[in-house]
Amino acid sequence: MAKGKHCVITLTTDFGMEDANVGVMKGVIYGINPDASIVDLTHDIAPQDIADAAYVLRRAYTYFPQGTVHVVVVDPGVGSQRRTIAVQSAQAFFVAPDNGTLSYVLQELREKGQETRIINLTNPAYWLPQVSNVFHGRDIFAPVAAHLSLGVEIHALGEHIEDVVMLSPLRLQIRHGKIAGQVAHIDHFGNLLTNIPDSDLISLGDRVTIKLAQREIRGLSSTFAQGQPGELVAYIDSSSHLAIAMVNGSAQQVLKSQVGEPVEVMMSQDTSLQQEGL
Amino acid sequence: MAKGKHCVITLTTDFGMEDANVGVMKGVIYGINPDASIVDLTHDIAPQDIADAAYVLRRAYTYFPQGTVHVVVVDPGVGSQRRTIAVQSAQAFFVAPDNGTLSYVLQELREKGQETRIINLTNPAYWLPQVSNVFHGRDIFAPVAAHLSLGVEIHALGEHIEDVVMLSPLRLQIRHGKIAGQVAHIDHFGNLLTNIPDSDLISLGDRVTIKLAQREIRGLSSTFAQGQPGELVAYIDSSSHLAIAMVNGSAQQVLKSQVGEPVEVMMSQDTSLQQEGL
Amino acid sequence: MAKGKHCVITLTTDFGMEDANVGVMKGVIYGINPDASIVDLTHDIAPQDIADAAYVLRRAYTYFPQGTVHVVVVDPGVGSQRRTIAVQSAQAFFVAPDNGTLSYVLQELREKGQETRIINLTNPAYWLPQVSNVFHGRDIFAPVAAHLSLGVEIHALGEHIEDVVMLSPLRLQIRHGKIAGQVAHIDHFGNLLTNIPDSDLISLGDRVTIKLAQREIRGLSSTFAQGQPGELVAYIDSSSHLAIAMVNGSAQQVLKSQVGEPVEVMMSQDTSLQQEGL
Repeated sequence: MAKGKHCVITLTTDFGMEDANVGVMKGVIYGINPDASIVDLTHDIAPQDIADAAYVLRRAYTYFPQGTVHVVVVDPGVGSQRRTIAVQSAQAFFVAPDNGTLSYVLQELREKGQETRIINLTNPAYWLPQVSNVFHGRDIFAPVAAHLSLGVEIHALGEHIEDVVMLSPLRLQIRHGKIAGQVAHIDHFGNLLTNIPDSDLISLGDRVTIKLAQREIRGLSSTFAQGQPGELVAYIDSSSHLAIAMVNGSAQQVLKSQVGEPVEVMMSQDTSLQQEGL
Repeated sequence: MAKGKHCVITLTTDFGMEDANVGVMKGVIYGINPDASIVDLTHDIAPQDIADAAYVLRRAYTYFPQGTVHVVVVDPGVGSQRRTIAVQSAQAFFVAPDNGTLSYVLQELREKGQETRIINLTNPAYWLPQVSNVFHGRDIFAPVAAHLSLGVEIHALGEHIEDVVMLSPLRLQIRHGKIAGQVAHIDHFGNLLTNIPDSDLISLGDRVTIKLAQREIRGLSSTFAQGQPGELVAYIDSSSHLAIAMVNGSAQQVLKSQVGEPVEVMMSQDTSLQQEGL
Repeated sequence: MAKGKHCVITLTTDFGMEDANVGVMKGVIYGINPDASIVDLTHDIAPQDIADAAYVLRRAYTYFPQGTVHVVVVDPGVGSQRRTIAVQSAQAFFVAPDNGTLSYVLQELREKGQETRIINLTNPAYWLPQVSNVFHGRDIFAPVAAHLSLGVEIHALGEHIEDVVMLSPLRLQIRHGKIAGQVAHIDHFGNLLTNIPDSDLISLGDRVTIKLAQREIRGLSSTFAQGQPGELVAYIDSSSHLAIAMVNGSAQQVLKSQVGEPVEVMMSQDTSLQQEGL
């Protein structure tokens, strides 16, 4: 076996698990770097749901060790002229089709003032010898990620580019006494995770009212256990954004909410929210 | 990367896979112990089903190498005053909220006369720097497990305690000629796994009758292949308890059984079952 | 912990993930070879669907490093007189019940002229000390695979045999101007993967017509992106066989196709397909 190198590689796809395509990508990676530690972020992205993959990756990537390589393959344009890209930041590498799956991470890195290098993957020396038109996860993304994990310089993989496909960010309007955002993701428990950042919301506690789906929730709960079973509660989620849950139940099932649904936060008149930090 | 240490860490949650929360826990673990081998027991525990998590863990833990760290996060009380605990036995470590998820394992260890040390996790030095109110799997349990896997002494993690939350055990009555138990878990194939231990049942063979859901099954089968497709058979499962299956089908679908359903074993009058060992 | 050895072990089962049985197999493996890299091919094979397991394994195994051990446990005859086998080829090892799960791989290896050694697993020295009647994945296949991954000679595991259970191959008839095959697998996206090999089909491009489910598709697409959303397209899949997809949709849902459904390829009269390579 080739000499390997310790490094984490994460995989995010819409492949599901039933066809072994994820397993095949891991086989390709171990063939190049037998010492990689491969982590499944999720393979349950809805087919072709690029925005959800972008969302899931942005929530997860900061919790991985320095040098982790994140691979995202939600790729309806596979085999077409869409480009394939790799991105290097101070903390991590990202490998994906150029279709917006990396755009929430790129946006966050730019907001944090972190530099990124973006490479158009044009060097077939780092791909499998045969590249199909329908499975670049196996033929391009997995081997490129494995080579990055071995320490191959990102410049070797192709040409430097500046512009990549960016998704429109979710709507977020902050006005005097009111924030308007959207449901960004619905999680396994049916909790509705929004794009409204915590900022100082938590300090306002009872002085905020959340409106969505013609319901109103008064105040923020600090824990699920604070509410009664069946009660709708608003809380700050694990990535510091506003979320809505039903205690011991599914908010999604009761509210029939979908990603994109408008969510409003109203502050009572005697409060003025510090929103510079948003 | 930090210097790591070979050790298995298992994860059992009700998180599902779609939100990458399990992946994030693995990122945190690899950041602390890059040489850990992480095994998913299951992430398909029904939301908040503490008893099923306790059952699944008890069936699985004895098959792992010495020193394995088992993490269980089914945690409806996250962020409340419920405690977080770590347990050390001769063979393994366990990390979980103090809500009963470890109680079947603790009960078994006590029955076997094995000593355990239980620690209330109060030392934030072994947690992530920021602890959210809603994701202690990432912020407390994953880093604590990773530190244990590196050889950190369990005493360093908090204070020694004696009493933890224990679930009521499933009902199991053994009388002359009759055992009354319950369905404890329904598996992927729709097999109904009970809490009735094998003991000497298997030696009785045809001389037992199993009753559940207004059906009777005469005798125990040693294999599925022994019955006809569509036939209900009783057998001893892989953890040495009585179970009911439909050959090439789902007993659950046909019998509409649920966890907790009563199961009776009747022994014919000329047999007297040795049950001291139960 | 025992001294381990770097090696990939893949697991393919119909166990699902909810019962931790897959995790238990991994615990057994790590107890024997702590340095194994374990890859899940899939655990979502439909219960007892031996042919689908055989298909999934054949598509995947060539992408793994030299020396990989592939374990397949779809085992309705567990505990009966069916044998358990291990196979060694130039590239890999395979461990499974002798029920046909390895037959598509064995058929392909024979067609490629590769030698194989087949062993009837009769030596309990390489099993767990206690073998249940219902979980040979844990008690026989996992420990045998772990020992193979450590370098144990396959001859040590039992006796050499020649004949194993082979599934009937799917129907594939190639006549002048017409190929008749079948749907072999339906993937996560609802794409219909057939047993009709690419050979020179791709070079015929527009000059072929595909018939299935009373529909006709004219010509082959090189990518999904080439069609319009909702359009049925025929393409060459990632394992170089003919497949049918609906662009941004599920061909399976629309056509209600099942595995085994006939698929025909008609070539226009002015073409003569080179089919010697099939």
